[in-house]
Parts: sequence; C-alpha cells; structure tokens
Amino acid sequence: MSKIPYKTYLEEHEMPTSWYNIRSAMKNKPAPLLNPGTLEPMTAAELSGVFCEDLVAQELDNDTEYYPIPKEIQDFYKMYRPSPLVRAYCLEKKLDTPAKIYYKFEGNNTSGSHKLNSAIAQAYYAKKQGLKGVTTETGAGQWGTALSMACAYFDLDCKVYMVKVSYEQKPFRREVMRTYGASVTPSPSMDTEVGKKILAEHPGTTGSLGCAISEAVEKAVTTEGYRYVLGSVLNQVLLHQSIIGLETKAALDKIGEKADIIIGCAGGGSNLGGLIAPFMGEKLKGENDYRIIAVEPASCPSLTRGTYAYDFCDTGMVCPLAKMYTLGSGFIPAPNHAGGLRYHGMSSILSQLYDDGLIEATSYAQTSVFEAAELFARSEGILPAPESSHAIKCAIDEALKCKADGTEKTIVFGLTGTGYFDLVAYEQFHDNKMTDYIPTDEELAESISKLPKTNK
Amino acid sequence: MSKIPYKTYLEEHEMPTSWYNIRSAMKNKPAPLLNPGTLEPMTAAELSGVFCEDLVAQELDNDTEYYPIPKEIQDFYKMYRPSPLVRAYCLEKKLDTPAKIYYKFEGNNTSGSHKLNSAIAQAYYAKKQGLKGVTTETGAGQWGTALSMACAYFDLDCKVYMVKVSYEQKPFRREVMRTYGASVTPSPSMDTEVGKKILAEHPGTTGSLGCAISEAVEKAVTTEGYRYVLGSVLNQVLLHQSIIGLETKAALDKIGEKADIIIGCAGGGSNLGGLIAPFMGEKLKGENDYRIIAVEPASCPSLTRGTYAYDFCDTGMVCPLAKMYTLGSGFIPAPNHAGGLRYHGMSSILSQLYDDGLIEATSYAQTSVFEAAELFARSEGILPAPESSHAIKCAIDEALKCKADGTEKTIVFGLTGTGYFDLVAYEQFHDNKMTDYIPTDEELAESISKLPKTNK
Repeated sequence: MSKIPYKTYLEEHEMPTSWYNIRSAMKNKPAPLLNPGTLEPMTAAELSGVFCEDLVAQELDNDTEYYPIPKEIQDFYKMYRPSPLVRAYCLEKKLDTPAKIYYKFEGNNTSGSHKLNSAIAQAYYAKKQGLKGVTTETGAGQWGTALSMACAYFDLDCKVYMVKVSYEQKPFRREVMRTYGASVTPSPSMDTEVGKKILAEHPGTTGSLGCAISEAVEKAVTTEGYRYVLGSVLNQVLLHQSIIGLETKAALDKIGEKADIIIGCAGGGSNLGGLIAPFMGEKLKGENDYRIIAVEPASCPSLTRGTYAYDFCDTGMVCPLAKMYTLGSGFIPAPNHAGGLRYHGMSSILSQLYDDGLIEATSYAQTSVFEAAELFARSEGILPAPESSHAIKCAIDEALKCKADGTEKTIVFGLTGTGYFDLVAYEQFHDNKMTDYIPTDEELAESISKLPKTNK
Repeated sequence: MSKIPYKTYLEEHEMPTSWYNIRSAMKNKPAPLLNPGTLEPMTAAELSGVFCEDLVAQELDNDTEYYPIPKEIQDFYKMYRPSPLVRAYCLEKKLDTPAKIYYKFEGNNTSGSHKLNSAIAQAYYAKKQGLKGVTTETGAGQWGTALSMACAYFDLDCKVYMVKVSYEQKPFRREVMRTYGASVTPSPSMDTEVGKKILAEHPGTTGSLGCAISEAVEKAVTTEGYRYVLGSVLNQVLLHQSIIGLETKAALDKIGEKADIIIGCAGGGSNLGGLIAPFMGEKLKGENDYRIIAVEPASCPSLTRGTYAYDFCDTGMVCPLAKMYTLGSGFIPAPNHAGGLRYHGMSSILSQLYDDGLIEATSYAQTSVFEAAELFARSEGILPAPESSHAIKCAIDEALKCKADGTEKTIVFGLTGTGYFDLVAYEQFHDNKMTDYIPTDEELAESISKLPKTNK
C-alpha cells in the first residue's frame, strides 16, 4: 500500500460536471425571501429585475438535485481547478496528533479565494442573457476581484462599488480589479441617488458594505442591460460553491478516506455551504454521518449568539427579507481582520440546517485565530487568510482533542484563501497590537430588538 | 485521443528524485570563481568559510550528472510541488495563433516564486552540517521570503538583510518573513562593520543590494555556527532549480509533447538555468535541438549588451570574482519594477552557454512587458510577477510570429511567480506613469571600463 500523497488532485475527467443542490435533500426547506413591501415570497418576476433569469431560477429551486455545469464554466474551472485536497502531514507532526488532517485549498488563484467559483457562474449567465454588464459591492475585495476576473473572461462590463475605507486602505486589491478591467468606485459615491443622499447626510463617511450594496443594486436596476450579483448568502451561490465539496468528496473517495469531522469558516455561508454540500446530502438521507462545524469570529457571532428570524440583508433595506440567524441588520461588527466574516446574518440554507441541529457552530477571538494561522503557515508553508484561519483554529483544537483522547479521527477543513492582502493584520499580530472585540449581551439584545416587524 | 488537459500535474511517484547538473554535459565548463586577492580559483577550503560544505562541493562539481535529492527535501517539495505545466488555451485563443503555448507555473507557494526550490535545499544542508542559522540579503523580498519559509521548516535561525528602501516600501514582504520567524534588518545597519562604515560615509542612504550582500556575508563569517546563502547566480542554485526543467520535461513526455522553443526571464539566471537544464543537456549531447531564449529587461541588459569577463559579484567587492556577461559591478540599473532582474551580471553557466551560441537573448522595455502581463492576466487568470512577464512578452511575440508564418511551434515558458506584491507597479502602469529607462551606450561603456584588472 502506498502512502496517501501530500496533495490529491483529481484528473480533469474526474472533475464534477454538475453542481449539487443541497436543498433537494432538506426536509425543512430554507425559508423563502420576502418582498419587504408585501411580505409575500418574492416571485421570479420580481427577482428578475435585479438578478439574471437563470440565477433567479436557481435561487428559487428547492427540488432539482443536480445542475449540469455549462461547458463554458467547466472550461474556466479547468484554468484554476481542481484545487488540491492536501494531507497536512507537517501540521499533524507538529501537533503530535493521531488525527488525520486534510484541507481543501481554494486559494491558488489570483482572486485568492473560493469566490471565483460563483463569480464565473454568475458572469456566464449574465453573458448568456445578453447583458452588457453586472454591478456588485466589495468590502475587503476578494469578491470584487473574483468577479472582475470572471467578467474579463466573458468580456462583460464590471462595476464594483468598494467601501471607501477599503478603497483607500487596500489599493492593491483595487489594482488587481483594474488589471482585469473592472471600474472600481469608492462608496458612497455621487454615482447613485442613494450615494448622494448618504453623502449629503454624512459628508465625511468612509462607507459601509450595506451602503455599497444599496448603490450597486440601484445602479443595476436603473441601467439598461445590467444586473446585480452577490458573492455569498444566496442559495444560488451555495449551489455554485458545491464544486468545493464535490471535489473534496471525490478526492477522499479516490484515496479511500472517510471524513469524520468537516470544518469551515462561516461569514455569509458560501464556503461552508459549498464544502459540506454532498456530505450533508448523505447525512440528510441517512447514508453517512458527519460532524459539521461552522466557525465564526467572536466579534460577529451570528449562529452562536444570533436569533433565527426574518431580517434585511442590507442596511439600506432595499433588498428582500431573508430568514436567517442574524445579529440584526443594524449590527456593526467591531473591527476585525476577517473582513469576509463580518456579515450580520447567515445564509438561509445554513441557518435552517443549524436550526435543525444538523450543524454545530463555534466562535473564536481573533488573536487565537492568528496564533493558529502562524502555526499553520510555519508547518504547511501556506500563509492563510484570516477568514480561513478560523477553520484552522478549530481543526487544530479538534486534533488536540484526538490527541488527548487517543482517537484517530479524520478531520477535513476548508482553507478558503490566502492572506497575501492581509499583512497589515499579521503586522498588528506580530507587534502585539491586535485586540479582541466581543460584543456584550446588551449590544446584541439592542441590535436584535430592532428586527423588522415581519416576525410574529 | 483525449485533448491535452489545461494543467498537467505529475503524480508524486513521477516527481524527479535527482537534480540534474547541466555542467556535466558542457564541453566548455563555466569558468571557476577566483579569489579576489590571489586571482587563483577558489578552493573548497576557502569557500567553506562562507558556504555550507555540501553546497561548496556542489558548487565546484562540474562532472557529476545527477545529484540524488535528499528525502527531507523531497518531502518539502511535496508540500508545494509538482508545479503545474499549463496549456495556455485561453491565451492561444486570444492571440489566434497556431502555436501551442505551455507555461511551467512556479508561483503557487507562499514565497510566490521558484526561489523556494533552492532555499529549502540550502537550509537542509545548513541543518545537516549542524549550523545554528544562515544569513542572506534580499531586495524585493522573494528570496528572503523563500529562505525564511525553508528555515522555519528546519528550525534554523534566519537573518535577512533587506535593502532599506524595500524594507520601508514593502512592509508586506517583511511581514511574511516575520510570520516565518526570520529576523529582518534594514540594510545598511549598525549590525556589521561594513554597515557602520557605509552609514558613517552616507548617513541618509537607503541601501543597495551590494551593501546588503556585504553585510550578510560579514555576519555569516563572524558569527559562530552561521553560513551565508544566496538565491541565484551560483552553480549550486542552478543545480537545485533543475527541478523546474526536470518536471517540465517529465510532464511534456507524459502528454506526448516536444518543445520547440523554451523561454525564460533571466536576472541572475536561477530560473532560466533550472528550466532549461535537461533540455540543454539533450542539446549538448546532440539528442534533440531546442531554441532557448533568455529574456532580460532593456534597463539591465547583461547578456544582450554586456561583456564576457571576470567581475565582482557584489558592489562591496567582498565576494569572489566570477566570469560572466556583466555590465560592471558598479552599474546601477535605472528604476525598474522587475527587481529580480536588476543584477549587473549573469550566472557563469548561462554566460558560457550564451557565449557558445547555445542560447539566444533578447530584451524588452518594461511598458511593453506590463502590456503582455495584463493580456496574460485577463486570458489565463494569473496575475504574473513583472520578472515572469518578460518571458510572457517573448512567448507572445514568438506565438505571433507563428501566426504570421502559419507555423505550429510548441512554445514553453517559465512563469516564475505571481505579482501580488508588485501592485504598485501595476498601478503606475494603469495610470500611465510608467517610464522606460534604457541605458545609453556611453553609460554602459563607462561602467564596463571599470571591470577589475584581472581580465587580460
């Protein structure tokens, strides 16, 4: 018997050719989006003003099990996928654990994260519909970068509203987007009515993700031939991201390994929802059991300390209402370097699975997360993104439990991206200037008390 | 017949287990290093004060054909290798060329370049010798990053002298090195006699690579248990980097493809020397013929406009003399964003091969290189390093010649690294603020006139 390789790559002909729709296996389906005016479920017609037609169909489809991946998207996937499933031999040795640790590494592409998996799909459907371009918002910049790469490939116009403070503090992300031909506008801007309004009311504001979403949506619905696209939270995004889990499952099968514990960081839920998709399918059907752990920052603990209710997806309240574990759309997470995990809510799919007890959740303060990140970098040679490092921290903790118990579990976690654009955070960590903000019960109660009245 | 895949990865058991020593096949061996005092060839004993013993043996060995790669190094290679050989289908389509274009992508590791291939070897031999640590210099930071990763793996101390202007302008590279536990000192420093002397003479200096080399060498020879290591130019480095070419050759063989043209950027020569090693071996033995092209920046054209002579490797003149194509050790290349290609000389091995007419050379001004880089990024999804983009530019030109001629050549080039830490350069390019400096004939003649008197 040969040893399991450090890295397992699928061959091209072994790559998944369909996405898996986890909703098809869920007994309790995720709650539908509601029209904030009528409080009725959003119809396809209503959603089509904002999103591409095919994506609307995917968003509303709780039944279809597999969606064939269009050939054009498969071709693009072949440029940067399959991503490797890596056996963390060096980390195991450093921890002296009997556990087997694997990670699915999604960072080996220029966007630096898994976001590209959905960006290329959304760009494809926009092109297929004959649109001129798409609009979106970006905070830290991963999603904006991924979308600009996808749009360059399909020769689509790409308008990104970047939170002004990030635009100024992260010029490198901005330049990557410009390299791919995207137009990047600091938000709030004079480009939209909502931007003008906010600037008039708060002349010195450095912007927020909620504001950037509102600008991007307004631009899409008021510009001929444009639609809005979003990088997380939505059902369609989790569908596209199922490529992560399908490849992971295929690679594990190829090397004859079965996961016991599956761990992923969770902000809006795109990574975790994609990683667990086929495994959760088996769990829902009773074919296999897995412990599945969502890891969130202690500064923005939507699953572990939020409430399950209908809420706005954006602060501007222009988007539909979604039922989710939420801290309230007015919750402003304290500064935290895992920008991709600073969302007040959680995808409806994951929220329902969590509410049904099918997923566990835990949270960590960021200093402990960076300690894990550094240990991982020195062992495995990859500098992880702060977001991904939440999953690393949890995987290390589980591996150390195995060591204490003397049990040989197989742990699989999602390494969503690299930290090359997060070195300001690493610098703070090295200089002992990093702080851990954790919201008080009173703060959370205050924010949650302002949920929309929809909830009976 | 199935189509050639986008990416070809070797299986672990197909990975090379020996390095190939190109010198063994050379009829005209590279000229030996000379002791600057006696002008006699440097002996192993003399070199051992500066370099590790095993590396000295490799440096001086012109005969051994294959060096088995120690298992510890093979294990480390498995963490980030094999690197993919990519078929540039999308670039071919964009260029509408009948040529087949392949690139060997060495950027998928945290150091962001091929430098790690030699860093881990040099760290291994230092550890094997029972040393406490190593010293080195770094300019832009790729080499320092690679070495700090390698030292973290073997638990060796790593002292990096970083050119002060880079230390201040590239804090991100510095932080990666700190993440891996290296100590990073801005050079010139008060840490060494040569540093103190330079600071006394030029209080406001922002440093230079030559000065940083001098500090690193002094620190190594004056500190118990330390040796100095270097990331390019030396024969030993080209030996380690042969892993690039061996993998490339194995992957081409696996898919049944033969290269016609092999292209690599050339600064000190580590990438090109490694990429071409097995191909040049076949060419030297008359088994196969290949066109091999070295690409350098027009601002620092050592092959295309330099002279073949003995010269100092550093500006401090503490290192041995090497015979090479050089612009003179006092040549200060004009500002250029391809920091890794700003060396005044070229490895002795490549210099000899070029002098023997076995390699061609060409040069490009940087604006044209960034145009190629952007085209490549938009086509292939990878943001290339400025250094690597020189090879891209040449590959595109050769592919366009194929289009004009209607010939179907197979072009292979080395994509040495990613440009994630070079976005200031991309920003200048996007803002049309990039300039092309090309030295005048007078400048070069002046610099070359100051070569050491050694040369008869």
